[in-house]
Amino acid sequence: MKARVHVTLKTGVLDPQGEAIRHALGAMGFAGVDAVRQGKLIELDLAETDPKAAEDQVRAMCEKLLANTVIETYTVELE
Amino acid sequence: MKARVHVTLKTGVLDPQGEAIRHALGAMGFAGVDAVRQGKLIELDLAETDPKAAEDQVRAMCEKLLANTVIETYTVELE
Repeated sequence: MKARVHVTLKTGVLDPQGEAIRHALGAMGFAGVDAVRQGKLIELDLAETDPKAAEDQVRAMCEKLLANTVIETYTVELE
Repeated sequence: MKARVHVTLKTGVLDPQGEAIRHALGAMGFAGVDAVRQGKLIELDLAETDPKAAEDQVRAMCEKLLANTVIETYTVELE
């Protein structure tokens, strides 16, 4: 079963990467870009086939390794 | 209008970050993780309100700045 994890900075946490992208887009002539946030996308191939067990496993991975829950939030999607 | 861009490495392109995550998960006792790929998630707030124009604009940004189309692919979602 495949899982897709989005890890994004919490609202209010400064995002220098996103800010750099916003700046670069403006300099390249793309107008009307109000805000940019950059996050991580992690795709996992799991041997687990039960959706509930897979989601629990991925959430545990996020809490322990994939996300820094002090400053980041994550969402898990299963396919 | 909000746009969400996923930038991922093309199939066949080596992903050392993903491989490091897979390794770390295994070492932490998470069994059954067959493959991990890491990509980027970029969220944009656009002043543009027409979905077609917004998508064209975001695709141009991807081609020129957000993705390295030699080794990466991207998908655009509008909200």
